[in-house]
This record gives sequence, C-alpha cells and structure tokens, in this order.
Amino acid sequence: MKEDVFYGKGMAHVKKDYPDIYDSVVELNKAAYTGKALDYKTQKLIALAITAANSDDRAMKKQMMSAMREFDATRDEIVDVLRVVLLTSGMPPFTKAMRILYELTE
Amino acid sequence: MKEDVFYGKGMAHVKKDYPDIYDSVVELNKAAYTGKALDYKTQKLIALAITAANSDDRAMKKQMMSAMREFDATRDEIVDVLRVVLLTSGMPPFTKAMRILYELTE
Amino acid sequence: MKEDVFYGKGMAHVKKDYPDIYDSVVELNKAAYTGKALDYKTQKLIALAITAANSDDRAMKKQMMSAMREFDATRDEIVDVLRVVLLTSGMPPFTKAMRILYELTE
Amino acid sequence: MKEDVFYGKGMAHVKKDYPDIYDSVVELNKAAYTGKALDYKTQKLIALAITAANSDDRAMKKQMMSAMREFDATRDEIVDVLRVVLLTSGMPPFTKAMRILYELTE
Amino acid sequence: MKEDVFYGKGMAHVKKDYPDIYDSVVELNKAAYTGKALDYKTQKLIALAITAANSDDRAMKKQMMSAMREFDATRDEIVDVLRVVLLTSGMPPFTKAMRILYELTE
Amino acid sequence: MKEDVFYGKGMAHVKKDYPDIYDSVVELNKAAYTGKALDYKTQKLIALAITAANSDDRAMKKQMMSAMREFDATRDEIVDVLRVVLLTSGMPPFTKAMRILYELTE
Repeated sequence: MKEDVFYGKGMAHVKKDYPDIYDSVVELNKAAYTGKALDYKTQKLIALAITAANSDDRAMKKQMMSAMREFDATRDEIVDVLRVVLLTSGMPPFTKAMRILYELTE
Repeated sequence: MKEDVFYGKGMAHVKKDYPDIYDSVVELNKAAYTGKALDYKTQKLIALAITAANSDDRAMKKQMMSAMREFDATRDEIVDVLRVVLLTSGMPPFTKAMRILYELTE
Repeated sequence: MKEDVFYGKGMAHVKKDYPDIYDSVVELNKAAYTGKALDYKTQKLIALAITAANSDDRAMKKQMMSAMREFDATRDEIVDVLRVVLLTSGMPPFTKAMRILYELTE
Repeated sequence: MKEDVFYGKGMAHVKKDYPDIYDSVVELNKAAYTGKALDYKTQKLIALAITAANSDDRAMKKQMMSAMREFDATRDEIVDVLRVVLLTSGMPPFTKAMRILYELTE
Repeated sequence: MKEDVFYGKGMAHVKKDYPDIYDSVVELNKAAYTGKALDYKTQKLIALAITAANSDDRAMKKQMMSAMREFDATRDEIVDVLRVVLLTSGMPPFTKAMRILYELTE
Repeated sequence: MKEDVFYGKGMAHVKKDYPDIYDSVVELNKAAYTGKALDYKTQKLIALAITAANSDDRAMKKQMMSAMREFDATRDEIVDVLRVVLLTSGMPPFTKAMRILYELTE
C-alpha cells in the first residue's frame, strides 16, 4: 500500500503511541503521492533521488527496495536517477548509492 | 542543447579561462543526461527535485525554467515533484519552491 | 492562528489550487505543534533553531518574527537558541542569524 | 558536568594531544549553554532537534541519552521535539529519530 | 587580524551585547587558525571550500575576499579550490561559486 | 593513481556496466585535481575538509586514509584541517572526524 512506503520500525511505535502524528503522516503521504500529472513510480524515483543526494544510507536503501519491489524499477532506471545525483551532488553520494544499489541487486 | 542546461554566467568564464574544467563538465552532463531507461524530461525533474530539496533558490529556479521551456513541463507536473519535496524535506523548502514556481508562472 | 505559522505567499496559492496538499499541511502543522509535554513557544524556538542551523535566511527570519510577535520571545531568548546553533553548526549560520536578528530588532 | 556534554572518545584525545582546541571547545560549550533566558534543558532539546534534523545518528543518540539522563527528559518531551523535525525536515530524519528513540527507551 | 576573519555586522552586536559569546568565538578562531602543520592561508582556503560546498553565498563571498586581500590568493588558487567543490559537491555549488568569484575579480 | 582516489566498490561496477559514467568520472577527477596553482596534496586535504564538514563517515575515512598513504599527511596536518571544520561546521562533525582519525592512527 501507498501509505506504508516510508514506514519502518519507528512508525509502528508512532501508530500505537502517537496516533495524531501517525494520522498526519498518512495524510501527508497521500497528498505527496497522489500526483495529478506524474505517475507514482516517477514520484518514488524522485524520493529516491533526494535521499541519495542527501547521502542518507538507510533512507536511500529503503527507497531503492521499494522502487524495485513495488514498481519493478530496473537497475538501469535507478542508475539513471543516480546519474543526476552525480551531476548535482558530487562523487561521495554517487559512489555510496552505487555501492548500496549493487549490494541490493547482486 | 543538453550541454547548456546548468550553464549560467559562471560557466561562460570557465569555458574561456579554464577549458579543462569546462570540457569535463560537458562530459559529465552528457553522462548524466544520456539515460538508458528514463527519458531526459524525467531526469530534469529529478534535478529540479534535488535542488528544491536543498532550498537552493537560484538553482531550483533555473531548473524550473528549463523544465518548462525545454520540456513543456506543466505547473501540475512541477507541483507533483514538490509534493515529494514536502514529504522528504519538510515545509521550508516546499514553501520556498512554491513561491518561486508561482513567480515564474504568473 | 497556529495553522498560519509557516504559511507565506506560496501557501495561499496552494490553498486555492492544490487543496489536498493544503489540507495535509494543516494536519501536519496541527500534529507538529500540538505537543503533549512541551509548550508551543518552546516548539517554535526549536523550529527557529533548525532553520537557523540550515542557514535558511527567509525561513529563519519568518520564525524569528513569529516567535517575537506571537509568543513575545525576547532577543535574549532567541540569542540563547543561537548559542546552540553556534555550538552545533558553526560560525557561518550563527553570524547570519545574528545579523538577521538585529535587523529585526533595531 | 555541562562541559562533558558533547565529549566522546574523540575529545579525550583532543584534551591530551591538542589542549588548545580542547580549551576553546570548553569555552564554546560554556558560552553556548550559559543561556540568559532559556534554561539548560531547553537548550539541550534544541541541540537534539538540530542533530535530528541533520539525520546524524550518533549525535542525535548522544543528545537523546544526555537529555534523558541529565535532565529527566521524558519520551513525550523528545517526541515533541521530533514533531517539529517532521514538519521542518521531512519524513526520513523523523523516522530515523523515532527508531533511535525507541531503541533507547525500550 | 586573525580574530576579525569571520566577523561581520552580526558580531559587532555580539561583542557589545553578549561579550561571553564574543570571547568564546575569539578563542575558537584562535584555536582554529593556529595550525601546527598547515599555514594560515591553506586553512583559509579550506574554510572557503566548506562554505562554497554548502552553497552559502555570503559566507563564501566573505571567504573569497578575505583570501584575496589578506593572503594574496590568486583567482587560479581559488579555482583550484572550486575544482574540488565540483568533484565532491556537484554543479550547483560550483557554478554559484564561479559566478561570485568572477563578480569579485572583474 | 590519481584516478583511483574516490573509487571504491561501487565504481568497479560502474566501470564494467556503465562505462560512459566511468569515463566522465575519470575526466572529472582529472580536471578536479590537475590544479594550476595549488598542489595535489592541498586539494586532497580540501576534499577531506568537505567530507568531514558533511559528517560523511565513509567518505571522510577514505579521504583521511588516502591523504596519509598517498601524501604522507601527518595527524597534525589533518587536525589542522579539522580545526577549520570545528569553526565552520560545529562540534558534531568535528568530534566524529576526530574519532575516525584516531581509529585510523592508533
């Protein structure tokens, strides 16, 4: 389900202990991914791009897995995202992302 | 032309005074945007997303203009990019990006 | 009103043209500032701290104005926030924030 | 002691091998946390907020532990800090921080 | 003087109104730039690199001016710093820095 | 070799599967480190500074190792880099970098 995309361990606790936060996150996710003009897969690749540009290991890994499992994103598609990360954000986030991508796909 | 995408004032000087840097940037741009699996427009929207997530006024403005002029990106398409920025990067970059988008489109 | 805190020009357009995003932002703001244990003023000072640490001129200015107008935050209180910014984020964001603070208070 | 707050392994070496740096850090900490208007606990929660917004695992964990041990900060208080992180910095730093918080409190 | 390097408008107010912060900043600057092994000019170029990598307009401009005025840094030396910014941090901070550099040197 | 500097596991895959990206990265590295006015070691210390300021564990570790092995950089030289990181970027990246440096040198 769309609502589960960003939800890991932390969010399970949030749902139980802080339902008002949880509900607002569900609303936020719905508004974020109910695009009018871009399809959901493209939006997920954009989320992947932003987390990779931020060099955020866990977040980009989660986004890569979700892109491959939920949307059948190919390695080439993800590499095309990372090409833009290289251009806009430099070598360190790019090499980190390539390493994580190959760990996931080999 | 694809090579001119990120090139503003600064790069004109680079071309003249530091041709080795200029040439490497041209190569980098080619490699970045010669995607195998995603089309060029999608890659440009990804670049837009990353600069917006970084709250970089000038860079996101340049990307928005380039997306609209070169690829006929609509406001709805750009807003769909910014929905993901809101989710992944919070309110300050989102509101900044919305303000710049409306300045460009009104 | 609490809901208007982060809302500038960009959000007026969002309300009119993208009401689903607007509604989710309203929910998010409610969940963010309906603290259980910290008062609202403290939470606003935390938002100020984060935007100042990010060197985001406009966002920190908006937060400073809102802290002073809505919560009667004093200059000393804001400087106490910026002391922590200096320690955790270094001189450039600190000096930028001090300049903006004095432009607002003189 | 206040001076030990940010000081982990690295700083023990600094104290021994680079006493001039160590002394300046001690002064900086004193100036940072000798607030005039905010209490020390609030300032610590602000430091926690900034490290969480930066998605810095170790630093936010250290700040959470210090807030709970030295200032009896409750989980609800820390969640109130993280609510602001969600609003200003998006889902990835928020979910990371919630996961770390629950690892510390369970 | 070394102590004045980072000090702009904001710091004049700090000196007068918050002398404890000012003193700690002076100590911090001394410790930062009293290198044992690298000369002061190299350290200033490193500060320039960090502010440029962060896309911080004002801070990088101040660092460039200070490098040129106090240390007779040439444009070629600063460009050599920015080459590393391009590699590690991508095109947007590089083009911004080149634009600012040429505005200062023309 | 200069070209190998930033190249870890990820880049071995890139060379084999995405040779156009690999070639552009080689060109970029050449342009980055073929300085006109600063020597290569200084440029490497600048790359170290930027990765340390970004709190990027792996990247700064790789840069420290490369600086020590390829350029006989001493611990004092690296600490002089980190002094500037402390001043410009605050305590969390500084203490992280000091910890990593001592793990490498002890």
